[in-house]
Amino acid sequence: MKQFAALPVVLGLATATLIKAEEPLRHTLTSIERGIRVMEWKTSNYDVIRKSKPAFSVKKITLRGGKQDDVDLITIDNGKLKISLIPTRGMSILRVESGDLRLGWDSPVKEVVHPKFINLQTRGGLGWLEGFNEWMVRCGLEWAGHPGKDKFINNIGEESEMDLTLHGKIGNIPASEVEVVVDRDPPHRIRVRGRVEERMFYGPKLELWTEISTEADSASFRIEDTLTNHGAFDQEFQIIYHANFGAPLLEKSARLVAPVKQVTPFNAHAAKSVNAYAIYEAPTKGFVEQVYCLHPLADEKNRTTFLLQNARGDRAVSMSFSVEQLPYVTLWKNTNAKEEGYVTGIEPGTGFPANRRVERIAGRVPKLAPGASRSFAIDVTLHSTREAVDEAGSAVAKIRGSRQTQVDAAAAKVE
Amino acid sequence: MKQFAALPVVLGLATATLIKAEEPLRHTLTSIERGIRVMEWKTSNYDVIRKSKPAFSVKKITLRGGKQDDVDLITIDNGKLKISLIPTRGMSILRVESGDLRLGWDSPVKEVVHPKFINLQTRGGLGWLEGFNEWMVRCGLEWAGHPGKDKFINNIGEESEMDLTLHGKIGNIPASEVEVVVDRDPPHRIRVRGRVEERMFYGPKLELWTEISTEADSASFRIEDTLTNHGAFDQEFQIIYHANFGAPLLEKSARLVAPVKQVTPFNAHAAKSVNAYAIYEAPTKGFVEQVYCLHPLADEKNRTTFLLQNARGDRAVSMSFSVEQLPYVTLWKNTNAKEEGYVTGIEPGTGFPANRRVERIAGRVPKLAPGASRSFAIDVTLHSTREAVDEAGSAVAKIRGSRQTQVDAAAAKVE
Amino acid sequence: MKQFAALPVVLGLATATLIKAEEPLRHTLTSIERGIRVMEWKTSNYDVIRKSKPAFSVKKITLRGGKQDDVDLITIDNGKLKISLIPTRGMSILRVESGDLRLGWDSPVKEVVHPKFINLQTRGGLGWLEGFNEWMVRCGLEWAGHPGKDKFINNIGEESEMDLTLHGKIGNIPASEVEVVVDRDPPHRIRVRGRVEERMFYGPKLELWTEISTEADSASFRIEDTLTNHGAFDQEFQIIYHANFGAPLLEKSARLVAPVKQVTPFNAHAAKSVNAYAIYEAPTKGFVEQVYCLHPLADEKNRTTFLLQNARGDRAVSMSFSVEQLPYVTLWKNTNAKEEGYVTGIEPGTGFPANRRVERIAGRVPKLAPGASRSFAIDVTLHSTREAVDEAGSAVAKIRGSRQTQVDAAAAKVE
Repeated sequence: MKQFAALPVVLGLATATLIKAEEPLRHTLTSIERGIRVMEWKTSNYDVIRKSKPAFSVKKITLRGGKQDDVDLITIDNGKLKISLIPTRGMSILRVESGDLRLGWDSPVKEVVHPKFINLQTRGGLGWLEGFNEWMVRCGLEWAGHPGKDKFINNIGEESEMDLTLHGKIGNIPASEVEVVVDRDPPHRIRVRGRVEERMFYGPKLELWTEISTEADSASFRIEDTLTNHGAFDQEFQIIYHANFGAPLLEKSARLVAPVKQVTPFNAHAAKSVNAYAIYEAPTKGFVEQVYCLHPLADEKNRTTFLLQNARGDRAVSMSFSVEQLPYVTLWKNTNAKEEGYVTGIEPGTGFPANRRVERIAGRVPKLAPGASRSFAIDVTLHSTREAVDEAGSAVAKIRGSRQTQVDAAAAKVE
Repeated sequence: MKQFAALPVVLGLATATLIKAEEPLRHTLTSIERGIRVMEWKTSNYDVIRKSKPAFSVKKITLRGGKQDDVDLITIDNGKLKISLIPTRGMSILRVESGDLRLGWDSPVKEVVHPKFINLQTRGGLGWLEGFNEWMVRCGLEWAGHPGKDKFINNIGEESEMDLTLHGKIGNIPASEVEVVVDRDPPHRIRVRGRVEERMFYGPKLELWTEISTEADSASFRIEDTLTNHGAFDQEFQIIYHANFGAPLLEKSARLVAPVKQVTPFNAHAAKSVNAYAIYEAPTKGFVEQVYCLHPLADEKNRTTFLLQNARGDRAVSMSFSVEQLPYVTLWKNTNAKEEGYVTGIEPGTGFPANRRVERIAGRVPKLAPGASRSFAIDVTLHSTREAVDEAGSAVAKIRGSRQTQVDAAAAKVE
Repeated sequence: MKQFAALPVVLGLATATLIKAEEPLRHTLTSIERGIRVMEWKTSNYDVIRKSKPAFSVKKITLRGGKQDDVDLITIDNGKLKISLIPTRGMSILRVESGDLRLGWDSPVKEVVHPKFINLQTRGGLGWLEGFNEWMVRCGLEWAGHPGKDKFINNIGEESEMDLTLHGKIGNIPASEVEVVVDRDPPHRIRVRGRVEERMFYGPKLELWTEISTEADSASFRIEDTLTNHGAFDQEFQIIYHANFGAPLLEKSARLVAPVKQVTPFNAHAAKSVNAYAIYEAPTKGFVEQVYCLHPLADEKNRTTFLLQNARGDRAVSMSFSVEQLPYVTLWKNTNAKEEGYVTGIEPGTGFPANRRVERIAGRVPKLAPGASRSFAIDVTLHSTREAVDEAGSAVAKIRGSRQTQVDAAAAKVE
């Protein structure tokens, strides 16, 4: 996954005949090896296929002013979806828009905050919250959960203790390589690929190649990441796809429709409402977050689908993924007042967001062997009609079959 | 305070006739909403009034090199005063100059340090001191005082404990919106307005609109800020206007002339010299800072004036403000050797600079209701003749009237 | 050392006759006083001497992308050596290359990390390791060793405690002044000078003027630094020149050839292998760092030479310096697997890298009086033939004479 041939970028009609039709457009926006950082750039169907239909584009801008100054932003417009990515913030996805449907939320954080203004250690390890406003931010890679002390091996080979910070570092590391690849052949798959590295001496040597891709005029897109351990030793890792939804999907009586084998409240507070875990409330001033640990059911190919639908059932989003890759889903309900951030997280991951120390005891901190890779993929589809929502609901029901959900009355005991 | 009409900026004579005479020149230098950050810009009386008199200008540059690289600096020259502002550092005022008179000091910190090089948590929470060299820096907004532990409500709704850092964050947050407004009509008021936001998820949603304004050829200027709580809950806040003076005003036998109801030493060390609190010493190697908590007297309109004058009484600065807005003044005397920073702070605020935990117990941590705003204004005048200084002193005496100052022999007991 | 005349820079033949032959080319790349930061620049023998021989150049670029975005890099090419410096990272030397010989190593950190992405306090004070990949990085200046608590004097004049971070701050402070000076007369000495300041209010006021210089077609270069205390009080300081070597010099059976009076293992782990301290192993997965504290022998002029040579003895580097300036050398052996960083450090310093608290007890934390300066110089030579290596070895032998090395079996006891 590390190397890509530096193909000539075809921008002019004159040279087009020299290139085989199937060769995609390929453009590097960032490369530390080649000292490249493109500040503004755009391509479209006119460049790629020299036709007016289907219409699509990829646009790179650099944000200016305040805490967002110098932040890269890439927007893929496939004709139906507009997907905005943030290379400067670990290839997070800021938002996805399609007509009146949006994946995203209204965070009290109004800027796309550059990592240079973030100190993860502030507020007892909650500094991550000063930049939190994306639709989807990855948590990880060395750790992904709650702040607090955990052990690590220090420079003199001894087990030492450090303060983990909320949700890890990857969401505040700028991508070292960013590349756009667009197929000239139908269905004109558009890929934005970014490499984010969590590396240090006497620490992890983890590389994450991220890819967000879609096709012209599609209502779906795919997140596909490959994580590689470049160290000489087995390396613990954690990854959680922290996908966050506000209006219009989240509203009173919105529902999570998902094939769940077991739901366990994260703590005593969440336990009180565990029976209503799949139903959302209206914005409620003073609502304290409720977190549920979900174990998904899957089909015979180990795939599952989670659906979030609005109250009327005519707008929804579904996320499909392999439970081999992402066996756990955290459901975060934060239906507080709008000013505080009315939001729910549906978060497939390699574990739950307890402190790594706790997750390790529970057997949910996997390791990567030296040189080994693991891939994670999530297919996301926006459903904009009642028919489409019903169809997606049927797919969920088919996965579930006759299997029941075990609803735990209390949080799991750890330690 | 949040919204400003996007008026057309008139730069050419050709379009001037289309605009009503009273419409001010308005120019946006930074806007996160519109993706604007102007690196270099200048306007002057020639642009604004198309006349050679009165002469005034506003100039924006971007500093380069070292720790100050990429820092915005705006200088207002009203023909008499040159006022330099730092949007990148929370709209702090670097210095004010008028002939041989200067508001400012010679800090050992020689660069206008970009917040990206500041870590507020270093040195046990004293990292703020790595960038401290302004004439006036605001302390606040979530907290404004000394480092140390204090409680806060964390993401699971529980009371938790965090390490506050010296003087808070606002002085190291870049402005998200910066606008210059210049009246075309006499007296040609020149305003530089900046919005600084201290926001996070599970934290404060505080917005501070700052304005520094002056008029052509005036020896006075005004700081006028409006603080708004955009959260859904009552929000504690603190603000202290940390105004700092070195030469030429500060010198041996310089004096604070102020109507003080009560002066309380901050600690036992300051208590030793409380009777001389209003008189300054020459630079004294090894002088340890002395801090005094002052309760100002005010006139029937609740306004007070603090005057700092040089030894000869022919140069001074006065700061006038409402004690309803800013009921407390911290006097910080740091007449150490010049190399260490020979400086005094005269600091109107909503409280004193003890840790917030202490201030809360003392009843000096106000709250803002959801959506509520509070304004703070300070009028500053430079006095460059004995007559002007005497006149300012008379105004102070008039406020005081026959009222005496209670001088406390010991620091207040808290906890 | 503080002030340099702003000589006219001669770039055109037309003006050359106006300049005396001996006047060097002088070009400012960074100046906070003058608001200068040059992003790209180059000079060469054609500019400086208007001849095709000897060939040399100095080139300034700005790195782009990822964590290295906006990092300044200067490369001196003297016709034999290519020396790359990083003004943005405290004037560290990234690498030195000469044919197949290289000073440097293959760190798991692949980017030249901008300090804005470094938080020295992470990982229990080991954040420095996120940017560590230079051939030579200075450790210091207020402290230079291991993390952990030590006392300092706080703003109220009291002895307080703070967390020191690994190897201090100087390697992550951008230079405030950078200047290139090239002699027009043979031997055409090329100097790159940079001023790095470690300053804060209520803290150190330390200025380090660094200079890296070489001559056309030379296999040697010189590091020459001057440290000045601009505070009013005696100031403790520490400086360690952390020079790091990987392939091709470091390999199985590579050797340190040095006149050592006494070698003391840093800890019990290092003590086990103290007798083999001067011999290196092949990359060994799981090798835990071994650190040795060396007391160098010197000649009658107090100069010593440390030589690192490859297994065959046909490639080497020597470092010569005064033991009055740098009386201690830390030998850091980290012959771990290549992926983890196969590297050794040979580190002349004013002390060893224990926490400053420990070094102070051992009498190895010097002080600078107010206004006083101390200089440190290291002459580095690359040896690319067996003859040259043998000759360098003979010089070391001559310094040693008949004096023996005392090899301590155990680490020193402190506290």
